[in-house]
Amino acid sequence: MFQADTFLNDIQWTAEGLVPAIAQDSDTGRVLMMAWMNRESLKRTAECGEAVYWSRSRQALWHKGETSGHQQKVHEIRLDCDADVIVLVVSQIGGIACHTGRESCFYRVLRDGAWQIVDPVLKDPAEIYA
Amino acid sequence: MFQADTFLNDIQWTAEGLVPAIAQDSDTGRVLMMAWMNRESLKRTAECGEAVYWSRSRQALWHKGETSGHQQKVHEIRLDCDADVIVLVVSQIGGIACHTGRESCFYRVLRDGAWQIVDPVLKDPAEIYA
Repeated sequence: MFQADTFLNDIQWTAEGLVPAIAQDSDTGRVLMMAWMNRESLKRTAECGEAVYWSRSRQALWHKGETSGHQQKVHEIRLDCDADVIVLVVSQIGGIACHTGRESCFYRVLRDGAWQIVDPVLKDPAEIYA
Repeated sequence: MFQADTFLNDIQWTAEGLVPAIAQDSDTGRVLMMAWMNRESLKRTAECGEAVYWSRSRQALWHKGETSGHQQKVHEIRLDCDADVIVLVVSQIGGIACHTGRESCFYRVLRDGAWQIVDPVLKDPAEIYA
């Protein structure tokens, strides 16, 4: 356990003990989402091979897909030069990362001075969270 | 100018008036870096078509590449479902986003419980910032 925890000490955690984690799809290359992790969530992610975030709104560990079934299988965990941002390279189960039923949370593009929705809903959220 | 500013009001800024911005290379698909933006930097990015961040350490606007020459030409600005994270799809001038002289800031991978450097230095930082 000592060895498994050492890498956590290299992270520059925020004052709240968090680090932003960007999930990228290993197949499509799409940036799927950004969420936050605390020590425990990063530790669990590394151990179980699925993305476990920290929900700031619920103040609880958030094993992505626990309700929707859309887990993220983690292939790589990367750290940036400042050691304060993480990238997860993942396989997105179901091909849907967003709670709106879209592949990616980044489904709006700035065009003509406004945010325009450009990506389709792949599955009705009412079905996903039924 | 009114039209140009409206989209800024849709952002869920942090208490410090910032939003995280993830830069992704349009050619390689690599996640290059994550930095922060305030209203002014996002406005300038949208206007000039090059990434302008907010340097938290210097508390100043940071036109990426102003010293290194490694500007980021912005093709798309995307916003996530919670309106609190941005993705910039960019062409990375010089193919180097990181101040260490690497393509991406995310050049370390977690292996065997430690962060291992897996990406090469493409150009000596001493040359970049000479």
